[in-house]
Amino acid sequence: MTTLSAVDQLSGRAAPERKEALFASFSARFGERFSRSEALRAQHANTLTWLKVQAPDAVLFAETTEEVSEAVSACAGARVPVIPFGVGSSLEGQLNAPLGGLSLDLSRMKEIIAVHDGDLDCVVQAGVTRKQLNEHIRDTGLFFPVDPGADASLGGMAATRASGTNAVRYGTMREAVLGLTAVLADGRVIKTGGRARKSAAGYDLTRLLVGSEGTLGVITELTLKLFGIPETILAGVSTFETLEGACNATIAALQQGLPLARIELLDEVQVRACNAYSKLTLPEKPTLFLEFHGSEASTREQVEIFSEIAQGEGGSAVDLAARAEGRNWLWQARHDAYWATKGLREQTDIIVTDVCVPISALAACVSETKQDIQELNLLAPIVGHVGDGNFHVMPLIDSQSTDEQARAREFLDRLVERALRYEGTCTGEHGVGQGKISYLVAEHGEAVDVMIATKKALDPLNILNPGKLFAEVR
Amino acid sequence: MTTLSAVDQLSGRAAPERKEALFASFSARFGERFSRSEALRAQHANTLTWLKVQAPDAVLFAETTEEVSEAVSACAGARVPVIPFGVGSSLEGQLNAPLGGLSLDLSRMKEIIAVHDGDLDCVVQAGVTRKQLNEHIRDTGLFFPVDPGADASLGGMAATRASGTNAVRYGTMREAVLGLTAVLADGRVIKTGGRARKSAAGYDLTRLLVGSEGTLGVITELTLKLFGIPETILAGVSTFETLEGACNATIAALQQGLPLARIELLDEVQVRACNAYSKLTLPEKPTLFLEFHGSEASTREQVEIFSEIAQGEGGSAVDLAARAEGRNWLWQARHDAYWATKGLREQTDIIVTDVCVPISALAACVSETKQDIQELNLLAPIVGHVGDGNFHVMPLIDSQSTDEQARAREFLDRLVERALRYEGTCTGEHGVGQGKISYLVAEHGEAVDVMIATKKALDPLNILNPGKLFAEVR
Repeated sequence: MTTLSAVDQLSGRAAPERKEALFASFSARFGERFSRSEALRAQHANTLTWLKVQAPDAVLFAETTEEVSEAVSACAGARVPVIPFGVGSSLEGQLNAPLGGLSLDLSRMKEIIAVHDGDLDCVVQAGVTRKQLNEHIRDTGLFFPVDPGADASLGGMAATRASGTNAVRYGTMREAVLGLTAVLADGRVIKTGGRARKSAAGYDLTRLLVGSEGTLGVITELTLKLFGIPETILAGVSTFETLEGACNATIAALQQGLPLARIELLDEVQVRACNAYSKLTLPEKPTLFLEFHGSEASTREQVEIFSEIAQGEGGSAVDLAARAEGRNWLWQARHDAYWATKGLREQTDIIVTDVCVPISALAACVSETKQDIQELNLLAPIVGHVGDGNFHVMPLIDSQSTDEQARAREFLDRLVERALRYEGTCTGEHGVGQGKISYLVAEHGEAVDVMIATKKALDPLNILNPGKLFAEVR
Repeated sequence: MTTLSAVDQLSGRAAPERKEALFASFSARFGERFSRSEALRAQHANTLTWLKVQAPDAVLFAETTEEVSEAVSACAGARVPVIPFGVGSSLEGQLNAPLGGLSLDLSRMKEIIAVHDGDLDCVVQAGVTRKQLNEHIRDTGLFFPVDPGADASLGGMAATRASGTNAVRYGTMREAVLGLTAVLADGRVIKTGGRARKSAAGYDLTRLLVGSEGTLGVITELTLKLFGIPETILAGVSTFETLEGACNATIAALQQGLPLARIELLDEVQVRACNAYSKLTLPEKPTLFLEFHGSEASTREQVEIFSEIAQGEGGSAVDLAARAEGRNWLWQARHDAYWATKGLREQTDIIVTDVCVPISALAACVSETKQDIQELNLLAPIVGHVGDGNFHVMPLIDSQSTDEQARAREFLDRLVERALRYEGTCTGEHGVGQGKISYLVAEHGEAVDVMIATKKALDPLNILNPGKLFAEVR
């Protein structure tokens, strides 16, 4: 196996004087859009994990692909790392700057360049957020389905291969991206993919960049698939006596080819948290939040079929939320799961982690995980994109308690070990970042060497987001 | 731009005596499974294109991943090219051996290793064909949807990123492959992806290998998505006065979110050919072959909705084929389009080519193409996976007529130029092989450098299928 220390060309990186000269030139060139203020730097380091904050040396707000190219090229010349930044909602330390460097903030690249409603696609700059896009296109009758909860930037979502509640029906960023404009490690600009729905023309560089977490290129523009807003949307809740029942109902529905748009599992701990936070009165039992898309007739039929399946697994018929408003509280509550969890205990940190397993293994994997939470005496609600076999666990930890922290780490190790034992993956949608580097090797073995070889081929100086995905010798 | 001659490390390749020693060792090791017979060699070179046949030096029938690894490793040691072979149905010279070498035939790797009906996935060896798989799993109520016409091997389909008639609903091999086992250029075996429906763990090596046409690794096993056989399948025909009408009806249906399973366009020349070959009596007009999947009620609803749309575009209501048998003649006729075309003129060669454009450009692109066919005085039917914007043109050429050949080449150049002008791609599903090397550069520009850099990183000796995708200096 290639030693991971292979990616260490930057160990003797940026002499301080070269970095100073670079930053002086950026200051002259970009004015107030370049900053070394401590507050801004801290804000640009990762904040949504328990990982140590490692702030960049400076922040640059880029506004065009050309500026990104210019900045990356200059950083490469001075051997200064570049950490692309969207809105800062990543969860595994993707935005930390362990080797210092420049946080390249793309949040001002908010132009929606084109909407092709005839082709169900659009072209956007990387800083456009999913909500901004959906508001912009509402009148066309189209929508962009990928929904990771946070109002993330589309560039960031592509970089981490985000997904979320709609993935079971509409796919993840892996499927949603038709093409990209990206700035390579030496400043070159390439376009990958295109606007055709499919292509067999050469290597799939689009999907090589999607999920590369800023380590192979800086995504500056995206061509994205859109979908027609369904004629009818029905949402509702089904409550189960057991987690197994909820999982089995999901499997049965998918096997029958029921085109579920959303199917989210909340365990009883998470339901309790949501009841308290979102002022709901749901029974504190394993619960599925569901959404059905289609024509009036077909959604009604889907609800009936699912209700029958649920009842066969000891669950309730689907309790339909009233239109519009009703749907909104449901999904707001789901998206507020993080804040609801935070409310379970005062002054607590939360580790947000995710794994994904084949759906047939979901019930067993979730049950064992709950048992482990009990054994380790942790408080850790579970929510899951159960149609994909993807679930999140959110252990609460007291940052003052080294003991609880140790138990939480033990829990994470065992969670990933368990997911891999069930032929799953160490992360379904949060990515590797810094938090899951060792698990990537556990999961992919020698294939990680191929990833590193690719990284070295495209970024020989290791300028782009170093210290992420792969372990690195300093 | 990196010169494409960068991929030329094999120019001083295999000294004849090293190749002889290698082949002697293969003969001793593999017995009758290794052959240098002329007939077998010719059979393993590309045959379904107008490209010159370039036979390999020898053929080896491998039966396990370990054997593939052993053979590739030995070939790398002796600097002998390796050309992976499935059933030989590729269309752009992917199987030719311009630099000689070993055709590595995987057609005996026909084991269906596992079917996980609860997870809607399966694991197969690369030589399993799509029909073999579908026969094997029929009793599970599941099916594998990707259908390029030929009964291709699944390994070959992954390697060329194949798609076909079902792609509009079920996706292409890009979406169908969850994970791969592949042998790298030095004989190492890696596993990519896995059985989870989604993953954010590291670079997407699965999709890097899918569509790499055997130039980055030899695919030996695949984990594939399966789908539930729909409760009801309805198929039918809708006839239009104009090509535009047929294209516009397709666009309108997709925009409404109608979940069409198949929607195939045949121009009047192709309908004439199919009528003659398949003994049909379809009106010789632009025609859509359609298929609808779902529940009894939802398929009926789809047919009604599509009929209304079609009539609004000057087309006929969907004329439903009777169940089962009816469907079969329809799709058999579609799949026999190649042979039907061959029947249009005696003693003719056919160039089978494809491009793909955004669907809004389809009507214009197809119309201009038909005009060009007329201007160049060619006979060339058009069939299309119109839901994807992908269409095929099949110019008939007299191999004795250098004039007709020149006009055909001119036609191909203009066809791709036209597709790119409409923001499309030079190939939707046939791949680049030898036939579209120059078009790949026209389409992707500097991104081709990134492909070449990746190729060099993973196959520094250029052992794997050299002379494909990228131009090469000998």
